[in-house]
This record gives sequence, C-alpha cells and structure tokens, in this order.
Amino acid sequence: MRSHYCGDINKSHLGQEVTLVGWVNRSRDLGGVVFLDLRDREGLVQVVYDPDLKDVFDVASTLRAEFCVQVTGLVRARPDSQVNSQMKTGEIEILGKGLTIINASAPLPLSMDNYQNNSEEQRLKYRYLDLRRPEMAERLIFRAKVTSYVRNFLDNNGFLDIETPILTKATPEGARDYLVPSRTYKGQFFALPQSPQLFKQLLMMSGFDRYYQIVKCFRDEDLRADRQPEFTQIDIETSFMTSEQVMEKTEQMMRGLFQDLLNVDLGEFPRMTFAEAMRRFGSDKPDLRNPLELVDVADLLRDVEFAVFNGPANDIDGRVAALRIPTGASLSRKQIDDYTKFVGIYGAKGLAWMKLNDLDAGIDGIQSPVLKFLTEDIVKQIISRTDAQTGDIILFGADKANIVAEAMGALRLKAGEDFNLLQGQWRPLWVVDFPMFEKVEGGLHAVHHPFTAPRGVSAEELKLDPANTVSDAYDMVLNGCELGGGSVRIHNAEMQSTVFELLGIEKEEAKEKFGFLLEALRYGTPPHAGLAFGLDRIIMLMTGANSIRDVMAFPKTTTAACPLTNAPGFANPQQLVELGISVIEKPKADAE
Amino acid sequence: MRSHYCGDINKSHLGQEVTLVGWVNRSRDLGGVVFLDLRDREGLVQVVYDPDLKDVFDVASTLRAEFCVQVTGLVRARPDSQVNSQMKTGEIEILGKGLTIINASAPLPLSMDNYQNNSEEQRLKYRYLDLRRPEMAERLIFRAKVTSYVRNFLDNNGFLDIETPILTKATPEGARDYLVPSRTYKGQFFALPQSPQLFKQLLMMSGFDRYYQIVKCFRDEDLRADRQPEFTQIDIETSFMTSEQVMEKTEQMMRGLFQDLLNVDLGEFPRMTFAEAMRRFGSDKPDLRNPLELVDVADLLRDVEFAVFNGPANDIDGRVAALRIPTGASLSRKQIDDYTKFVGIYGAKGLAWMKLNDLDAGIDGIQSPVLKFLTEDIVKQIISRTDAQTGDIILFGADKANIVAEAMGALRLKAGEDFNLLQGQWRPLWVVDFPMFEKVEGGLHAVHHPFTAPRGVSAEELKLDPANTVSDAYDMVLNGCELGGGSVRIHNAEMQSTVFELLGIEKEEAKEKFGFLLEALRYGTPPHAGLAFGLDRIIMLMTGANSIRDVMAFPKTTTAACPLTNAPGFANPQQLVELGISVIEKPKADAE
Repeated sequence: MRSHYCGDINKSHLGQEVTLVGWVNRSRDLGGVVFLDLRDREGLVQVVYDPDLKDVFDVASTLRAEFCVQVTGLVRARPDSQVNSQMKTGEIEILGKGLTIINASAPLPLSMDNYQNNSEEQRLKYRYLDLRRPEMAERLIFRAKVTSYVRNFLDNNGFLDIETPILTKATPEGARDYLVPSRTYKGQFFALPQSPQLFKQLLMMSGFDRYYQIVKCFRDEDLRADRQPEFTQIDIETSFMTSEQVMEKTEQMMRGLFQDLLNVDLGEFPRMTFAEAMRRFGSDKPDLRNPLELVDVADLLRDVEFAVFNGPANDIDGRVAALRIPTGASLSRKQIDDYTKFVGIYGAKGLAWMKLNDLDAGIDGIQSPVLKFLTEDIVKQIISRTDAQTGDIILFGADKANIVAEAMGALRLKAGEDFNLLQGQWRPLWVVDFPMFEKVEGGLHAVHHPFTAPRGVSAEELKLDPANTVSDAYDMVLNGCELGGGSVRIHNAEMQSTVFELLGIEKEEAKEKFGFLLEALRYGTPPHAGLAFGLDRIIMLMTGANSIRDVMAFPKTTTAACPLTNAPGFANPQQLVELGISVIEKPKADAE
Repeated sequence: MRSHYCGDINKSHLGQEVTLVGWVNRSRDLGGVVFLDLRDREGLVQVVYDPDLKDVFDVASTLRAEFCVQVTGLVRARPDSQVNSQMKTGEIEILGKGLTIINASAPLPLSMDNYQNNSEEQRLKYRYLDLRRPEMAERLIFRAKVTSYVRNFLDNNGFLDIETPILTKATPEGARDYLVPSRTYKGQFFALPQSPQLFKQLLMMSGFDRYYQIVKCFRDEDLRADRQPEFTQIDIETSFMTSEQVMEKTEQMMRGLFQDLLNVDLGEFPRMTFAEAMRRFGSDKPDLRNPLELVDVADLLRDVEFAVFNGPANDIDGRVAALRIPTGASLSRKQIDDYTKFVGIYGAKGLAWMKLNDLDAGIDGIQSPVLKFLTEDIVKQIISRTDAQTGDIILFGADKANIVAEAMGALRLKAGEDFNLLQGQWRPLWVVDFPMFEKVEGGLHAVHHPFTAPRGVSAEELKLDPANTVSDAYDMVLNGCELGGGSVRIHNAEMQSTVFELLGIEKEEAKEKFGFLLEALRYGTPPHAGLAFGLDRIIMLMTGANSIRDVMAFPKTTTAACPLTNAPGFANPQQLVELGISVIEKPKADAE
C-alpha cells in the first residue's frame, strides 16, 4: 500500500511519484490550497493539494485530524522560503495526485497537540492515541533499539537467552509477590517472579556458563513515579567470572549502548567504595554531576558546649557533616527554613548553618546561630576543610549517621539543582564493597540479597564479624540512578546456610523456602556472578523522560490499574469456585 | 579461570598449554592412568593424568561424577588408535599438569547416563542436573539461536520489539485465564494474557506499523504433551499489509531460519485451502510427508442397500471417504480391529474395509464384509478412484463429515507411520480460506478469533451468509503441526460489531469486554494483519524433541506443578487478607 515511509522522503526522491499511508497530523486550507501534514512512525511529510485536481481536492478538503489515508503524489522541492530545517522532510513536499480515505476518525477524546492538557488517566485510557504523538512513539522506537543492541551484544559475547518461568514460587526479594491461584492444587498459589534470581543461579549449576534474559518482573508494591507493578530487567549471570570481569563486560555493554544510540562516550567508569560514597555524598548512588560534597567535622566538635553537635560527634553511630554551598550566603531566612523542613522529611531534627558573608572580616564576617558555641579555631578549621569562600554557606547535619547521610545527601541533590551546579551530562560509576548486612531491629538484614557472597572470608570468619564484612557486590550508577546491581553469588552450601543463619532464617524455614537451592549447591556448583539492569529506568534516562510510564507502551496507573482495558475486573464466580477461592469483601453492586 | 571452552579444543591448539573449567563427565583409572572426560557447555574433552605427577594424580584419582574442576594441561594429539571421530575433540587430548577441585559433588540423585531410567518427576525436581545432559543443553542452546535469528530477521525488516502487559484483562481467546488478585482493588482480578492480541492491534492503531514480541502467554488448561501453562509466542503484527504480504514475509523468515540453523531449504510453501485440506487429509494441518489421502466416494454409494453407507451419502452434512493403504491387505483381522477401535476414539461407529487380494481375479479376489452391498461397477469405480492395486486395503469412513474427517484423518496419520510411508523430512504449507465461523450448538463460533476479517465482503453481505463466508486467515503448517496462524484483522467498528452480533455476543457484553477496542476502531484505525508462531513447538520440531517440556528450561508437570521449587504453595494468610480473598477448601494439614 505504500512505496515509502512519510518520514523517509527527502531530496533524493525529487521527481518521483510516491505512495504513502499514514495519519492526518494537520490539514489546512490556505488560500484555496490544502496543506496536509501526513504522519507515520518515521515522521511527517507535507502534502499539497491544488484545486486544479478537483475530485481529489474535494476529498482533501474533508480531511480531519487522525484520518487514516493513502496519498499518491510527486516529490518536489519546496520553495526556498518554505524550507523547514526543523523537519527531516523539510526540504521537500508532495504534490498530491491521489487521495483515499482508508478510515475516518471521530473527533478525538484528547488533545494531540497540547498533550499536557490531558490528564494521566485520559492519556492511559486512550493510550493508542497518546502513543501516536511522535514524542511517545520515538521513545518506544528507541526502546526497541536499546533491547536490540543489548541482545546483539550479549549474543555476540557467548550469553544464551534462556527463558525462566513466570508462574513460580514466592521469591525471596522481600517485596510483596503477586499471587496466582492454582486450579489443580486448590488453595495453593503460584507467585509471579520479582526476579529470576534463583533460576539463573540454577542455570549456572546446569553449566550454561553465560545466561541473559530481558524479562518481566513483578512487585506488588505501592507505586511511585519510577515504579510499576511489572517492569523489565536485563538479567545476566555468568560462571567462572570474577566481579571485576562481570563489571568489565557489562560496562563495555553500557558504553557501547551509549556510543551507538546517543553518540556519547561514557569513558571508563570510576569505582567508589560504598563507604566513600556514603561519606562524600550521603548516598550509595551518588550523582557525580553534582560537585557538592559532605565533609565530616565530628572530630572538631566533640568538645563544644552544644548538645546538637557534641552528642552525635561522640556517638559511635553518630555523624556530623558539613555541606558547603558556593554563593549560598545569598539564601534568605525563608529559604533556609525551607531547607530545614526538607531535611526534616528524612528525619533530621534541624539544620545548623553558617553564612560566610565576609571572610576578610574574620569571625565578624560570619553569621550563624551556632557561632556562639564554636571557637574561632574550630570555625577556621571547618572553613578550611570545606574549602569555603566568602559568599558561601555551610550547612550542618548532626544525628545518627544514617539520618545524616540520607538528609544531607538529599539536601546536596536539592541544592545542586537550586544553585544550578550540575556539571557534565553523563556521570557513571561503580559502587563496590557494600557491607554484607545492615543492622535492623532484631538482627541483620541482607544489603543485597541472601545469595550474595562475602568478599574473601570463610563461613567461619563471616560468623565472627558479620556486620563488618563486605560483600562481593557492585552497583552501576548513572547520574544518581542505580542502573543495575549484582554480585558474586555464594556457591557452596555451608556458606549459604551460614548466611541464612545470620539473617535469622530458621533451618526449617530455609529448607522450606530454599531447600532446592541448598540441595542444588551439593552437586558441583560452579562459582558464579551476575547482574540485573532496570531496563525501564535506563530508557527513561537515555530518552530524558520524566517517568518510566512514558517509556512503556501500556503502563498502569499509580493504583496499579489500566484505564484502557479496565483491568483489574471482576471474575466469573464459577472460575473462583474452580480455583477454590472466594472474595471476602463483597464487590460494590454498581461496579459490577 | 579458563583459556578455552572444553568443546572448542582441536588440533589447532596442539602444543598449547590450556586452562579449562567444567564438570567431570566420567573419570576412570585405567592401568594407573586417570582418564577424565571434562565437560562444559561446548562439549567434552579428554584429560589424561599420568602417575609421574604424583600430587596431581592423587587428586585426579579422587574425582567423581559432576565434580566441578579446573584443569591445566598441554594439548597433544591422541595416538591414532585412540582417535574418536564421534567427538568434536576426538583427535586430541589434554595431558593434565594441574587440577583444582572447585566444588565436589555428592552422589547424584538421578542417573546422568541412562536418563530414561529417571522419571519425569525426578528429571524436573533435579532439573539443574537434567539440563547438564548434553542433549538437553544443546536444545536450549539451539533455542537461543532460534530466538536470536528471529529477532535479527524482524529487527532488520522494520519490526519493533514492543512489550505488552502481563497483568491485564481477561482475554477473549476462549481458554481459561490465569487470574491474579488485585490488592488495591479488592475482589477484582487481573488475568494473564492468552496472547497479546488486542494490545498488538492497539499498537497498529498507534501507528507503530510493524510490531513483534517473543512473549510468554498463559492458559489454564488441562495439559498434554505439547501444552504447558505458560508458553512462548513469536507474536507479529503489521499495518497496511495484505495477507499475501504477511505470509510472504513470515515464510521468508521461516525459510531463513531452517537454512541458517539446520542447513535445510524448505523451498516455497504450497498453499492449500481449508476445504481441500479437509477433503484430502481430513485435517486443517495436514502432514504432507504422508502420501495417503482420503477419497470421497459418497456419490457412488447413495443407492446401495447399506444404511452405514447410504445414510451419510445422502446426508448434506454427511461424508463417505475411502482411504487406500498400499500393501494393506496384509493387515490381520486383529490389526483391522485395532484400527476400528482407534477410529472409535474420534467418534466413528465402525470401519468398513476391502482387501484387494488379487485384482486379476475380479470380484473373487476381493475380501470385504461390505462386498455384498456393492455392485461390481461400484467396486471398480472405488478401486479406480483410489488408485488401488493388488495387495492394498481400502478403509471406509462414513458418518457426519466432521467425524469422518477427524477419524479418517487420524487413521491416515497412524497408517502412514505403521506402514512407514513418510516421505521427505520437512513438508511445510500454508492453509488458507478458513471459514469465518463453525456451527456449534446454539449458534456460530469463530474459527480463528472474533477479530478476524472476512475476505471480500461487507458487513451487510457477511450477515446474509455467515456460515459460508471465508476469512482472511492463514495457518503455517509443517509436518502435520501448526507452527503459527494469523489473519487480517477487522479494522472498522461496524464490521467488528457485526461479527460480535453473529457470535451471539450481546451489545452490553461486547461493550463490557471489548468496549475499548470498539472505541479505538473509531479513530482512523489502519488495515492490519498479523500472525503468532508457537516458539516451543517450532523448537521441538527442529530439535526432534518428543515434548515441548524438553525444549523449556523449567517446565511444569502435566498437573501444572514444579517439582523443583514446589510451586504452587500455600500463601501467607496475611497476604490473602490484603488481597481480599480466602481459600474455600481447607488445605490438608500434612501438606502445610
């Protein structure tokens, strides 16, 4: 039905007769000539209908937005005055000779031009129209290019694409599973996988050596802008490779991806330990575009007569960190109050500050509610340590270390944006040497997951000091977002049992939940390691979209519903009987 | 940890020192020398440990099956007498210099050598060991090659890989859906998709023009050898293409796949109408390797004095078909009785037969219980029409046409196998011109699905004679298996409403179930067509596996359970409360 895509017509086609199909993006009668912008997935082209071909012109006059039409015509150069350099096809136009309306369109239920006028609900309800917008279409086309690149890279590097089950057992990732009632085993349930973690480990035990899968994963969590009930992972696992080798290979993939699709050279990714990231940036996924850093000053404040400072400064779990914002002395009292409220979100009880109005004036040039508690020497050391200059402000977080990290880390990001400090477009890094465990009430919690191997210790050694053992895990971070994370896995049963034990998982529970893994570890399991990337988030970053919803064809709302299909919906009562389940809450009659 | 894969070592490496990792496939001490067959995913290699390196030899002596080990050694040629031409690496061996046991293995719970001794349940429970068998590993490696080929083909032909939701609304394919309870909308359920049919149509309405996805689909059906609760489709949809163009493109893909991976030229696929396929083969997926054909003889039998024949012969819905089996006169009475029982499975009430012991002897050379009802002329005409020869048997099916087709079609396949008649290895074809509807009790049923377009009629014309309208659908068939099927879809709302009406779907029900589709059809929907291939079945055929279970990494049993992970399992009662559902049948205490 077509000779070319609309968006592909250019000067090389001058003088050719072409046949195009597509949608009416816009159609206007300007002084007795119809100008039609015809759109297909490759772009727009302008078609001109002159009144001398009366029959065709009459049809053209009836066109309305989003009619699906077939056009034949002659490619000709636009007059110089009408060349549109913003458009791929802006140097040419089609002189229309024929026109067939394939399918008319009713008036549209949402605005195509001013899509910001459409509510998110409307956009999802009429998703098939929303996806006609070039911006949306281009994102999904870009997404297809990314997956194609990734697959080719992995195929060419000896990775095997192997499918793992969607109907499976409750997985250990910790989030809430989606359940699927079984009909043959009434009263029992499958779970949708939060990741294929154990299956990919089993594939290594089977000897497949290098596995990948671009795979749907599921979490029944309350949703945020970058969370969806189903999301897509680039899931990777390898045998006989060290963490260094896995990082090298996947970094190579990511560099290639950015080079190929965005013409961006990411360069070699720096490595940073978890400890350093927390110390300098208050985050395990630091945005390195932001030059602000936290500076520890507890050692200077141990003896000051100010409980807000000396408490945390003398607490082994406490921390006092300074954040210098260049030119920040310009902040108003109101703005400082807003920052104080902001850190309150993260549990900080206050925000001490110090404006350096004029360093030449010595202590008199400094304005701060806490100045009275500090000696001139301490102030000088703080200024020197933070590299502060006249006109800057220094903000202080003092609390438990985790609260300081979270609150001041968040404030660092906010101030970086507010003061327009971000440098460079893409700043990747690896964060490594994560602790194996974090302390939680009642015991230890796995920082990654319970299959992560500790670095360089035996099971016996791990037991002696679990809280200070680092794991052989690694996260790839870009611009403050975690693109993916992984680890070397435990490959012997004794170590695995020890980790379960340290996590407070009872022997019986471990056997019930992970018995098959512990059993599998007995039969010559190879050393293995892997990584999973969040595909949606990668596409979101690469396309500059604001939400992962904008890089998915048919996402759910924040209440996990689909306004397009009206999913979820009520079930056939007979089917519930077959499944051996019943609904507790009576559905509202009017919703039926 | 390795310099090469085991299976990749060959004469080009002679004299090189290599490092290998893998599993002990077999290890024997033969006359004071340890012969180790080391296995990785690429194959086996023989490693020889001489006693002169005592330390290493002592370790080698302790090896048992499925230990995971690292080997270093020197590649050398095998003595001529020991060259094994069956093995990829059969010309060389490794003289072992080093050996590290990476991970020992407990005695195996199933036999690796005589896997037929393992029950299906055992094989699935220890799937990670079952998948170590080269036969199984090779199938999954082959599968990865197939998906890689298919993706590259489609990527290079302008198809976009776009993901569609797994948590969606009940789909209209007719099989039972898997349900997923919603937590935010208590009492309501998502359904897992039986196919992304409506989403891919919506993507065409969005203008994506060419879509594909290799995607999991779900059916909660009772299982057979070639059915699994979750299976994988190569799902394709295009806009502005005719059925011919879709067939051409997908046939090209399949030919390329067979050429590339099996070095088989499938040639151009013949086309056959549904009517011809049913007439000649009693099946809409005829196995063309089988030369036997059904021959209609009702016209000859209308006036015979034998109700079994003259009833169906005079019934407009009846059929009398003859099946000639060359050399079949050798069948014993017992064998004919078995065939009679066999057709009984398909509802046939009996099986008339005629043995042509000696055609030169005229009617006396023919042996048949029905001979007495037939004139010599009728017998001659039957013999002539079926091309029968001395020594053949002719079998007769006489009943309702659908029973004759099914029973005699099945018997044709069975006889083809029994008499070893199959010719050629690969016999693809397209079956086209399916009827739109089949008559069922109470009305009409869609032969494909309710979105299939009729061929060449308007909605008005369709209403006039729905039962005799053919659809614009097509199935790709290979060796008697449906590889895939598809159709041109309905692209206007009036036609779609008419088809729903003819299928007895009430307006309200149509609106409730397919309202979004009917709405979407109003906004300039393009003509579109597509197809879905059953990936598992394609792999099964190409690898010669007996079951789709053997081409999946982690399949379910025939009761839809996973003996490896013990899925499904009991749910956390608290989670059921959150979902607003309860289990009706009390789970057995001992199963908890």
